[in-house]
Amino acid sequence: MQKPSLDPTVIFELFRGAHATELLTAAVAHFNVFGQLAERPQSGDGLRKKLGLEARPSVVLFTALKSFGLLVEDQDGVLSLTDLARDHLVPGSEFDVGNYVGLAAQSPNVLDMVERLKTNSPAGADSESGAAFIYHDGISSAMEAEESARHFTMALAGRAKNVAPVLAENVPMEDAELLVDVGGGTGIYSFALLQKNPKLRAVIVDRPEVLRIAQELAVEYGVADRAEFFPGDMFTDPLPTDADVVLLSNILHDWDVPECRQLVQRCADSLAPDGRLLIHDVFLNDKLDGPLPIALYSASLFYFTEGRAYSAAEYRSWLAEVGLVSGEIIPTLIHCGVVPAARR
Amino acid sequence: MQKPSLDPTVIFELFRGAHATELLTAAVAHFNVFGQLAERPQSGDGLRKKLGLEARPSVVLFTALKSFGLLVEDQDGVLSLTDLARDHLVPGSEFDVGNYVGLAAQSPNVLDMVERLKTNSPAGADSESGAAFIYHDGISSAMEAEESARHFTMALAGRAKNVAPVLAENVPMEDAELLVDVGGGTGIYSFALLQKNPKLRAVIVDRPEVLRIAQELAVEYGVADRAEFFPGDMFTDPLPTDADVVLLSNILHDWDVPECRQLVQRCADSLAPDGRLLIHDVFLNDKLDGPLPIALYSASLFYFTEGRAYSAAEYRSWLAEVGLVSGEIIPTLIHCGVVPAARR
Repeated sequence: MQKPSLDPTVIFELFRGAHATELLTAAVAHFNVFGQLAERPQSGDGLRKKLGLEARPSVVLFTALKSFGLLVEDQDGVLSLTDLARDHLVPGSEFDVGNYVGLAAQSPNVLDMVERLKTNSPAGADSESGAAFIYHDGISSAMEAEESARHFTMALAGRAKNVAPVLAENVPMEDAELLVDVGGGTGIYSFALLQKNPKLRAVIVDRPEVLRIAQELAVEYGVADRAEFFPGDMFTDPLPTDADVVLLSNILHDWDVPECRQLVQRCADSLAPDGRLLIHDVFLNDKLDGPLPIALYSASLFYFTEGRAYSAAEYRSWLAEVGLVSGEIIPTLIHCGVVPAARR
Repeated sequence: MQKPSLDPTVIFELFRGAHATELLTAAVAHFNVFGQLAERPQSGDGLRKKLGLEARPSVVLFTALKSFGLLVEDQDGVLSLTDLARDHLVPGSEFDVGNYVGLAAQSPNVLDMVERLKTNSPAGADSESGAAFIYHDGISSAMEAEESARHFTMALAGRAKNVAPVLAENVPMEDAELLVDVGGGTGIYSFALLQKNPKLRAVIVDRPEVLRIAQELAVEYGVADRAEFFPGDMFTDPLPTDADVVLLSNILHDWDVPECRQLVQRCADSLAPDGRLLIHDVFLNDKLDGPLPIALYSASLFYFTEGRAYSAAEYRSWLAEVGLVSGEIIPTLIHCGVVPAARR
């Protein structure tokens, strides 16, 4: 697998522009965030309750508004308006442009995002087709049907093909023998690591319908002899043990905090005594106030899954809870990077 | 009228992010622009015909793709792929992320934009509610009904309140006596100019339902004694003559090229011998390849009206056709500026 010679990040950033429209319009025309905060600064928790939002949607919305330069949060978690928001988005103020933004209030994608924010459930979860990208016991998931599992899995493969060779180059694992790739999907990240590290063997854990695709691709990438496929439920089935490396590549961002903590615990339990857990994902700022492209990607994750983007600080706290010490972020590509963690 | 102390432009840029998603996804998943151009570079005109697009939608789409860094156009009007597009958006290429972009192919706002591009007609024009913002003989227009005319006119007023005082400050007209504000809407631009120039009298031309709002606002701004209201059709009714200044503020961008040329001609005919025609609008680059925020605003104008954003070169060519010499752009606010023109 070769690295791309050009960085395609800008394509993803342009692609996610719609979430700026949706969250700005939702804040202005559906939740009256700026009117609420004009009266007085409020704790994030107090404001979200007043708006009828659960924790996850409130983080997505408030993070975006902070990244837009419209809200600030102090050290005590109190939200207030920036001067820009005060001058231009408080209803009735002299230079208010909220009615202009309100022109999009009834557009279908805004209404859809508002519905997701209010219900805290991913698109499709209550429909026959099921939620895209994610599976857990008890939800309707497109990842359990062959055709839709293939569709969504392959849609993500294009990004993985760009990022995986950079991951393999930037994260050395010459001496590792067993890699466990939890929620490995197409297996492309594993296959790049297998190509780069001849001593390595990989076990890819995912749903059976997804692993059919991974099995085909392992042959294409010439690593089928060192790839194993472990069909199961990463939340409930026993995972392989004694792993030198456990990889969670773009997995935790699909799940809410309790599931993330559970997965981090289970992955830590899979590690050999000197094994490493690698969280490969995007990172919000530790203050959850940006960067803008990640705040918009977080909205996309929120919309499609039960997750959102997290900060490195959030990942580090869950790693610390299970006794793992985390190192510096190793950047890869398309906003991604690795937080490595080990027992010491 | 005071100027705002902060520049609200970023709010408008965030608000228009959805058009990046829509046009990128339309190009990838509905029009196969990158697959078409991978075979060979093609003239813009040839490509638009192959895609089944009329001139206006093709300019909107191709301008956006150029501003995204995905297409380039040479001096002969031949479009080709940039390296970024060739590496990452040509179907089947090694690092193609088109399937990822295709995840939005069926989202309602993408489908809606695709429909507008294919039909070259503004949203609402074929419905009972009618097109927002624009009126001409023979189309169904929301600007003919009191309630919807008020809604859309006031939605634009927030932007005008920010920009108008800057226009009045930056464009001197101390010696002018008669201003004709063609399609003046709320009249806010005229009222700012009246406040700034005590010798000035303004005639505001617009639809009767819109002028009701302007009449109310003229009282609020304390300039009712120098404001006149001219209900009519700017395309067909005789306009006032002998104007020292004719203002077309954010009007031409609502109309296609033939109507723009007609309006420029009619406005030129309204001028006193040494009068000035002021085109106050946003400007695409003369090469129609950006800037990105204006390319996205152009998509919004395209979606809602019969127009798009134009370049200063396009405005200058229409001004030259009617014997007017244009000067340098005078910037105002929120991407806008004035192209001034006079007989000599």
